[in-house]
Amino acid sequence: MSAATDISAYMDRLGRQARDSAATMAAASTAAKNRALLALASRLRAHTAALADANGLDLAAARASGLAEPMVDRLKLSAQVIETVAEGCEQLAAMPDPVGEITQVKRRPTGISVGQMRVPLGVFGMIYESRPNVTIEAASLAIKSGNACILRGGSEAIHSNLALWQQVQGALADAGLPPTAVQLVETTDRAAVGRLIAMPAHVDVIIPRGGKGLIERIAAEARVPVIKHLDGNCHTYVDAQVDLDLAVTVTDNAKTQKYSPCNATEGLLVHADQAAAFLPRIGAVFAAKGVEMRCDARAKALLAAVPGATVVDATDADWDTEYLAPIISVKVVDALDEAIAHINRHGSHHTDAILTTNHPNAMRFLREVDSASVMVNASTRFADGFEYGLGAEIGISTDKFHARGPVGMDGLTSMKWVVLGQGETRS
Amino acid sequence: MSAATDISAYMDRLGRQARDSAATMAAASTAAKNRALLALASRLRAHTAALADANGLDLAAARASGLAEPMVDRLKLSAQVIETVAEGCEQLAAMPDPVGEITQVKRRPTGISVGQMRVPLGVFGMIYESRPNVTIEAASLAIKSGNACILRGGSEAIHSNLALWQQVQGALADAGLPPTAVQLVETTDRAAVGRLIAMPAHVDVIIPRGGKGLIERIAAEARVPVIKHLDGNCHTYVDAQVDLDLAVTVTDNAKTQKYSPCNATEGLLVHADQAAAFLPRIGAVFAAKGVEMRCDARAKALLAAVPGATVVDATDADWDTEYLAPIISVKVVDALDEAIAHINRHGSHHTDAILTTNHPNAMRFLREVDSASVMVNASTRFADGFEYGLGAEIGISTDKFHARGPVGMDGLTSMKWVVLGQGETRS
Repeated sequence: MSAATDISAYMDRLGRQARDSAATMAAASTAAKNRALLALASRLRAHTAALADANGLDLAAARASGLAEPMVDRLKLSAQVIETVAEGCEQLAAMPDPVGEITQVKRRPTGISVGQMRVPLGVFGMIYESRPNVTIEAASLAIKSGNACILRGGSEAIHSNLALWQQVQGALADAGLPPTAVQLVETTDRAAVGRLIAMPAHVDVIIPRGGKGLIERIAAEARVPVIKHLDGNCHTYVDAQVDLDLAVTVTDNAKTQKYSPCNATEGLLVHADQAAAFLPRIGAVFAAKGVEMRCDARAKALLAAVPGATVVDATDADWDTEYLAPIISVKVVDALDEAIAHINRHGSHHTDAILTTNHPNAMRFLREVDSASVMVNASTRFADGFEYGLGAEIGISTDKFHARGPVGMDGLTSMKWVVLGQGETRS
Repeated sequence: MSAATDISAYMDRLGRQARDSAATMAAASTAAKNRALLALASRLRAHTAALADANGLDLAAARASGLAEPMVDRLKLSAQVIETVAEGCEQLAAMPDPVGEITQVKRRPTGISVGQMRVPLGVFGMIYESRPNVTIEAASLAIKSGNACILRGGSEAIHSNLALWQQVQGALADAGLPPTAVQLVETTDRAAVGRLIAMPAHVDVIIPRGGKGLIERIAAEARVPVIKHLDGNCHTYVDAQVDLDLAVTVTDNAKTQKYSPCNATEGLLVHADQAAAFLPRIGAVFAAKGVEMRCDARAKALLAAVPGATVVDATDADWDTEYLAPIISVKVVDALDEAIAHINRHGSHHTDAILTTNHPNAMRFLREVDSASVMVNASTRFADGFEYGLGAEIGISTDKFHARGPVGMDGLTSMKWVVLGQGETRS
């Protein structure tokens, strides 16, 4: 399968099979979909050793190619990772079926009743890197939401993904559902991605997960809608009226509970009225945890004296940067307006929080900050499908169109109109 | 403004102005938005004569260029058309403001409350032909939904559109809102469209209204999401168990109440058990109204004997055709499954209806027909934003992503996540 025409024909075949099985999945009973999810959980647990063997091939290749150990770690299908994704399948099975839900049925003056029914989008294409557990997360969300999907994982995880996929196909067959509802692209040829994102007849939406560069490239070249997750330059803003203890606890959690997630706070804004009281306290916390503070002049003046603190001047670029590291930008602002304007200009419209006891300010922040998640008195780290009660997430959207923020099963569906009449005609 | 670089700079300026005013519109009070809508209605009525003068220039040019009279008709800004769009503005003012609605707030085990807030999409670009009243429909929907928009009408309506836009700008100013919230592209240079659909920094979504060719071209070239309205190849299916009187009345209305709308029925499917009883009756109605019937062999056998009927053999192409004319394709099917398969294969996923007294069949049709609107015992002609209670529609989407079917104010908004906490942190 070296020639581009072969790849193209191969992808077209996957596309046709996905389209065909999407119709079956859309009409599948809740019981059958849940059976497939529970079968998948059992199979993953029963085949943990075989999965580890396949994963071992990827790990060895990764180490041989000189991949850094933290990256190798992300590839690992440990027994604990397997157990976590198996539990995820069981949790999805226990959730209500989104498909077929009919809402908002209202009687119109003409006599017809008009409502909306939730239905699957059809076929989604998923493009991802490293972590092979995404294969199971995507497959299980596809099954429960009644969609078909075509999965394209990274070449560094190909053996792991193939082994996982084998269990997915088995689980679908166990439940009497078409194994082609979830297909894995078996070639690591990059031409497959180019074709996957340009088959509007077969694929309804593309969900890329990976670095910003990958996602921007896919969005630029795709011929179908893309649910984009670009960067997470998230902010926490400490307002003029605030519970200082709460502000220290929440800001600490938002920055330091984990440095790598996209919902970690990267920028701290502090109202001038609280700067002298708040900044030395949070500065001491950051100093103890080795978090570097990149400051404007006023913040620096208050933080430089904190024992052990690493305090440097922020450059213009800092306000726009997602560090994903023990670094935070810090700026003192004179008003809520300035905080909102800064966030809307420099943030990435992902997740931003205000810490305040002032109700009108809380409401203005919620309304005027143009981000997928806006929070009052909570850690930005909560921006997550599981924390929001979605059961699982296929990604986090930084777009406004279709789905914003954590995308769960509802984001893989759309609403069609349902009209119930008794012979009404239009005049 | 002949050079492409000038057009590009001009469109970028419109884009920046739209983006700036979108923030103001998103935060605008319901009262201010309603004031603008009511001012617009008053101004349209007060300037009916001046609008007719501007419209006269377009009509004269259209006639001079040899445009057919039905097309000239679509350009006309008669006093009645003005009154209808003025009333539309008043109806929108009377509707609830969609912006800021917070729904589904639920307490999570961690203590945070998670809900969703409806917010404007930002800036939409509208590309349309002929009918200048679309200028007011788009402007008024933008105002009420808190969006900014850039309107690009057809060159054949440029004088009418400019005159209407002047009143929109006046109404926005009357209400203290930025006149740049609604901008009209003043040049008729086609390069402006190419730029409008490729400014993701300034425009969030493109809504084209016009022929299928225009929409396909825009969708292929756009760099931002497009709400597409392709063709309306709609079906009415008469099931094995049916109220024959109801079936005749509804099928007649669905086909003949108007021939040109996208929601008119183009294909009639009849269960074999009812074909002998139903087809001669509907055939007589169609014969009386001069509707040509393009039939499969079984339908032809039953319809050929109807006095005055024009009955011809359907070709394969007929099943895929949107006639927008007094023509209908007719086919006899042996089962509900066959009807659903035919519709999903040949229809355009716009609007399809089943006429039946059988409840399980009604529910299967609703679930399994993959169209934006699915109906039981009602005329396909009801698929319309006003009939559905949306107040007005910016278009009808044949897409699944984001919005399906008639798109009203909700389709110009999206939901952001709102998290309300009391100092919760993630563990």
